[in-house]
Amino acid sequence: MYTMKKQNVSDAVIRRLPRYYRYLDDLHLKGSIRISSSVLGEKMGITASQIRQDLSCFGEFGQQGYGYNVDELRREIGRILGVDKSHRIIVVGVGNLGRALIQNFHFNDAGFLLEAAFDVSPDLAGAEVAGVPVLNVTELERFVPAHKPDVAVLTLPQSAAQQMADRLIGLGVRGFWNFTNVELSSQAENVRFEDVHFADSLLTLSYRITER
Amino acid sequence: MYTMKKQNVSDAVIRRLPRYYRYLDDLHLKGSIRISSSVLGEKMGITASQIRQDLSCFGEFGQQGYGYNVDELRREIGRILGVDKSHRIIVVGVGNLGRALIQNFHFNDAGFLLEAAFDVSPDLAGAEVAGVPVLNVTELERFVPAHKPDVAVLTLPQSAAQQMADRLIGLGVRGFWNFTNVELSSQAENVRFEDVHFADSLLTLSYRITER
Repeated sequence: MYTMKKQNVSDAVIRRLPRYYRYLDDLHLKGSIRISSSVLGEKMGITASQIRQDLSCFGEFGQQGYGYNVDELRREIGRILGVDKSHRIIVVGVGNLGRALIQNFHFNDAGFLLEAAFDVSPDLAGAEVAGVPVLNVTELERFVPAHKPDVAVLTLPQSAAQQMADRLIGLGVRGFWNFTNVELSSQAENVRFEDVHFADSLLTLSYRITER
Repeated sequence: MYTMKKQNVSDAVIRRLPRYYRYLDDLHLKGSIRISSSVLGEKMGITASQIRQDLSCFGEFGQQGYGYNVDELRREIGRILGVDKSHRIIVVGVGNLGRALIQNFHFNDAGFLLEAAFDVSPDLAGAEVAGVPVLNVTELERFVPAHKPDVAVLTLPQSAAQQMADRLIGLGVRGFWNFTNVELSSQAENVRFEDVHFADSLLTLSYRITER
């Protein structure tokens, strides 16, 4: 198997990769050894040719007449996604949402090591949530340069989001998982914002249950 | 303007509709009156022809040489999504995530009326979260047939998710906004599950920050 990174992989293809990973992981856990693009496509609700076309952006996968080795393809897509990189991540904002993510989200399964959480409230500093230390945001200037987290999860109030992003970018953070529902921007190089838009998901459901 | 519902609109198109709505809403709030498909496409990172093709699934929008009237297109897409329907919604599971959604998510903006929340804990029954009454899950058998919620938000533990979905389906609920990270299914007709996969979003970010 030969994999490569092609330039200019479209946003739509990139967004499908985690879904491939999720389905393949599930198949692997259920004991599947191999799968054809048509069966995988049926499960995912996309065409076999779409799958072949998507994967061709990254190299050659599968064999004519055999299909894909489930575990092999799962590991390759995981590698493309960076699941094997042990990225470091911090949570900024330990309200209900921050707390819910710390307690329930499997950062490890996505290849992320959750190192610490930060909050403005002095009452929370020194506490732990699900084994993760909570520090005061004033500790960021010491912590970030020392630990070099790759990603900050933004679960703080909207009004503080851009300022916090700028502060973290100044300290070297380049990836932001943004739950604040406010659009963030930066002139700094290589900064990536990934916004979580809950409403997009609910509106998709709304479409499906709306009678016409 | 003439709109219709075409059969077999693809999943990808349906998933782009909320994004159109979000961008148009933002443009409208900023005072934009009209926009061309190429400018809208540039903002959204898709091609103008993709936009025209997507919208053609639902009718005829825009005028050659004029582009789209922002507010008109926003309202039409809102209508297609069912934002004008005042769907009723309940939250099942008032842990950190349920609480975060009740407190911070703008259900109204998505056309949903949040009527009540339910939890197994007797301690929570009778309380309110952000003005929303919290009832014990034993009240579901009385509440659901009387209030006929269209959608249940599932923010309860994984282990209880399928059983709760079956119970709610038996009571007449047909839409589920599923935050439990477990796949749910039903043989009942017209039941829709919309799963929120946080990991898909984080893995997309992981891809973008991973050096190759």
